Amino acid sequence: MLVEKISEMKSVTKRLRFEGRSIGFVPTMGFLHEGHVSLIRRSKQDNDITVVSIFVNPLQFGENEDFDRYPRDLNRDLEILREEKVDYLFYPSHKEMYPDGFSTTVEVKGITEKLCGAFRPGHFKGVTTVVLKLFNIIKPDRAYFGLKDFQQYKVIERMVRDLNLDVEIVGCPIVREKDGLAMSSRNRYLTDNERKGAVLLSQALFEAKKMFDLGINDVSKLKEEMKKIIQSNPEVREIQYIEIVDSETFEEKVKAEKGDLIALAVFVGDTRLIDNIQL
Amino acid sequence: MLVEKISEMKSVTKRLRFEGRSIGFVPTMGFLHEGHVSLIRRSKQDNDITVVSIFVNPLQFGENEDFDRYPRDLNRDLEILREEKVDYLFYPSHKEMYPDGFSTTVEVKGITEKLCGAFRPGHFKGVTTVVLKLFNIIKPDRAYFGLKDFQQYKVIERMVRDLNLDVEIVGCPIVREKDGLAMSSRNRYLTDNERKGAVLLSQALFEAKKMFDLGINDVSKLKEEMKKIIQSNPEVREIQYIEIVDSETFEEKVKAEKGDLIALAVFVGDTRLIDNIQL
Repeated sequence: MLVEKISEMKSVTKRLRFEGRSIGFVPTMGFLHEGHVSLIRRSKQDNDITVVSIFVNPLQFGENEDFDRYPRDLNRDLEILREEKVDYLFYPSHKEMYPDGFSTTVEVKGITEKLCGAFRPGHFKGVTTVVLKLFNIIKPDRAYFGLKDFQQYKVIERMVRDLNLDVEIVGCPIVREKDGLAMSSRNRYLTDNERKGAVLLSQALFEAKKMFDLGINDVSKLKEEMKKIIQSNPEVREIQYIEIVDSETFEEKVKAEKGDLIALAVFVGDTRLIDNIQL
Repeated sequence: MLVEKISEMKSVTKRLRFEGRSIGFVPTMGFLHEGHVSLIRRSKQDNDITVVSIFVNPLQFGENEDFDRYPRDLNRDLEILREEKVDYLFYPSHKEMYPDGFSTTVEVKGITEKLCGAFRPGHFKGVTTVVLKLFNIIKPDRAYFGLKDFQQYKVIERMVRDLNLDVEIVGCPIVREKDGLAMSSRNRYLTDNERKGAVLLSQALFEAKKMFDLGINDVSKLKEEMKKIIQSNPEVREIQYIEIVDSETFEEKVKAEKGDLIALAVFVGDTRLIDNIQL
């Protein structure tokens, strides 16, 4: 069932809670792929009711980013949601989420300044603000986030703890194409040649993990190898970052340890792709 | 009943909601006076259960402000709460509210930059952050704020609307001493002579309202008169601001209109006092 109004969504979830049903929530920006589907299936496993939201959140896009061209296809999404037997789709307008006079933001400091946060000022502030709003509207028992956006997952977790929210944040494994490319709505931007080059991101991560498992923990060596792999394709326009960091604080490491995160952001053509792997 | 732990407070209010009881909430920094008592009585009128919190919130004090010397007297407060038959006192430690690693803030832009916000950078950010946490812990149906802190009341109202919270924000009239001084825990700082001078704040506001009611709406004239009254006492060290503003946007007015707010902040000796009146 499609719900567009906040007031209606609130009364639906209020009734569900009153009936004692657990609510799982999967926030998305639409253009659903198998990554989203994995979150939905996990939510359906864990909860009585699953709510998916589709909202391309302008607050989390920078001025020169791809808000306008971000892929949208509601009919295709609806088909997937029906197939997965999702109970409710929350699909609010921008006006509904950010009415005139809207002026409140929620911000997590510290971990938002690293990795993607360093290159996308305001991005995580946009994410935490919209996610808090969605949590307040839907009041889920559990919310599901893909670990492809590992930093986002940790930022949300931090917000939930700091603001004493009751929702349980569940991080779900990255879903990959057969060749290893992490699923992302933005993959749709890639030309055929770029798509071929894009596979090197995950290959570099897998290679680094293999090296680490073989005993190489020197971060500069691991990063050097990954760089070499990624830059071997001419479609790679720019490596924004390749970092090996503590997976809680996102502080850069010198010697990699079990549990650390390798994260990268790379421009393949004009498309910014991210991926990561935990050691 | 005194509750110190967030987890305990949450399970208490969860049980109450489950039983279908309405919860009224009065957040305070303690050192309770008749102003607080008026909020408590209103809450008891409107709700099945009343929760009062006492927490001197470090986040909302500036570096050179009076966090350390802010008056505290738990035993006296407990007596008042017992007398008023308050159901629960939530009395968390700083560590409980801001554990290690705490790094999330909630901020309302725009209206927080005027009046007190212009002189107390970060103050309202501290207020909205702690109030949101308290709302999330207690999940009240209604929360009560004194209109002496008119700007705070409006900022909280804005946050609640923007973040889609379910709590109803109730503003309650300023409670004054017999001579007109607005009740405030900070009045306790005043020496006898300062206390005598402090009465001029409300007298200036009453005089301006009287002039307005007589047809004088020229803001500069009204402000001039208030200044003259307040400065007539040598204990007044500094007028931080006297403003006549739109009571929604806090934009300064040239011609005062019905509904506008006259707000002022004045140092009497070392003590910063605020007061206001709505035209």
